[in-house]
Amino acid sequence: MKIAIGIEYHGAYFQGWQSQPNGRGVQDAVEHAIAMVAGEKVRMHAAGRTDSGVHALMQVGHFETTVQRPNTAWVRGTNAHLPPWVRVRWACEVAEEFHARFSARARSYQYVLYNHAVAPASQHGRVGWYHRPLDIAPMQQAAKLLLGEHDFSAFRASECQASSPIRTMHRAEVKQQGQYIVFSFQANAFLQHQIRNVVGALVYVGQGKLDISAFGALLENKNRALSPPTFMPDGLYFTGVTYDAVWQLPPCETVWD
Amino acid sequence: MKIAIGIEYHGAYFQGWQSQPNGRGVQDAVEHAIAMVAGEKVRMHAAGRTDSGVHALMQVGHFETTVQRPNTAWVRGTNAHLPPWVRVRWACEVAEEFHARFSARARSYQYVLYNHAVAPASQHGRVGWYHRPLDIAPMQQAAKLLLGEHDFSAFRASECQASSPIRTMHRAEVKQQGQYIVFSFQANAFLQHQIRNVVGALVYVGQGKLDISAFGALLENKNRALSPPTFMPDGLYFTGVTYDAVWQLPPCETVWD
Repeated sequence: MKIAIGIEYHGAYFQGWQSQPNGRGVQDAVEHAIAMVAGEKVRMHAAGRTDSGVHALMQVGHFETTVQRPNTAWVRGTNAHLPPWVRVRWACEVAEEFHARFSARARSYQYVLYNHAVAPASQHGRVGWYHRPLDIAPMQQAAKLLLGEHDFSAFRASECQASSPIRTMHRAEVKQQGQYIVFSFQANAFLQHQIRNVVGALVYVGQGKLDISAFGALLENKNRALSPPTFMPDGLYFTGVTYDAVWQLPPCETVWD
Repeated sequence: MKIAIGIEYHGAYFQGWQSQPNGRGVQDAVEHAIAMVAGEKVRMHAAGRTDSGVHALMQVGHFETTVQRPNTAWVRGTNAHLPPWVRVRWACEVAEEFHARFSARARSYQYVLYNHAVAPASQHGRVGWYHRPLDIAPMQQAAKLLLGEHDFSAFRASECQASSPIRTMHRAEVKQQGQYIVFSFQANAFLQHQIRNVVGALVYVGQGKLDISAFGALLENKNRALSPPTFMPDGLYFTGVTYDAVWQLPPCETVWD
């Protein structure tokens, strides 16, 4: 049978989602813990491959197994074999046709930036940081240019293995919350480093180093070499995955508090 | 001259505020970094001695020095010699009569509790956790009994070195924020473990293990041995210190975001 699980993790403790030869991928930790409960090896498939240092409030994965366990065993039993910085939040049996990655209609991410002269200390590793005041209005305007279907090559990592650079952006918002700036994105899928590259460019807009039309030209020119640098992973959260209702998954969306 | 500084830190990286033989106190890190800027040894005095694992959004300290530096040097220069989980947020020269501890009129703390069946992962080390649903209304009622002047022996650690167990509580509030419960306290001063012991007792009230009158009796009986266990330090934040306006300090209060 096939089991879907919702997973939360603190990215600073891992080298990204994907399995690593040294075992420091989130996938390694989760596969090991599930195997302890299942009594057999399992292979996890996840909706999104987060980079090293990137957090997940709601990653969704699935695995196949020959054993039957109550959902609570997949949650509590697995958590008993995981370090405290990764937790299975829910589990449920899904149809054989479900695939955590290929059935996903959309992915949601938020980037939390601390905008203050002094770096965050108690939030170290959990938020991005920029030390000079940012003008949020042009950042909000520029973000709107990302909406809809685009070739996002301008914001694509050189190592990105996606077969196409075309993605459809459903949401691209920038909001001020006290000393924080919260960026919210939803798209059918994202290219490697796409959000960190977009955030880097929007921070240039907020500084006045790029105006809105120059930001639009960046996107249209499709040339990563012309774009501002990739922003740090610390503030990036994978917040949820959208699936069709037919799969009957628990709610898979969450938000940064 | 005398310099006051505001300090933020992530408590999980330290064995509490106070200087330790192994150098793992926040005080050790800050004294070392300031000495690098001053070119001479300094001795820090702080408003509150936080325990191991307890965070500070705004600890206030002072030191005496023979050298003159601009305030920005005390902030940026010191931060350049500190690990990223501790930051000096501001610095200013103060009158010789000022003392970070003895001039303080009140201390403020907040305790953030994650109330969910599954432990927090991305917030590991930054929030307390209780896994069963808590009834917040009686917790709010019980907290009100703490207001005013009391002998807080019921919530005092056995190792507490304070000369008197009598403290005056100005604020004791419990609020629900989504899956979180935020406790806010202000008092002229606090006994050792006082807040963690109070939170432990209020969690008993929220579970129905203690009713409001039993909570009141605990306080009146002044016997620590009858009180529920000390709650974990992870969710406790030192959020600010109140001084008389005459000292002309920068704002010393902040809140958990």
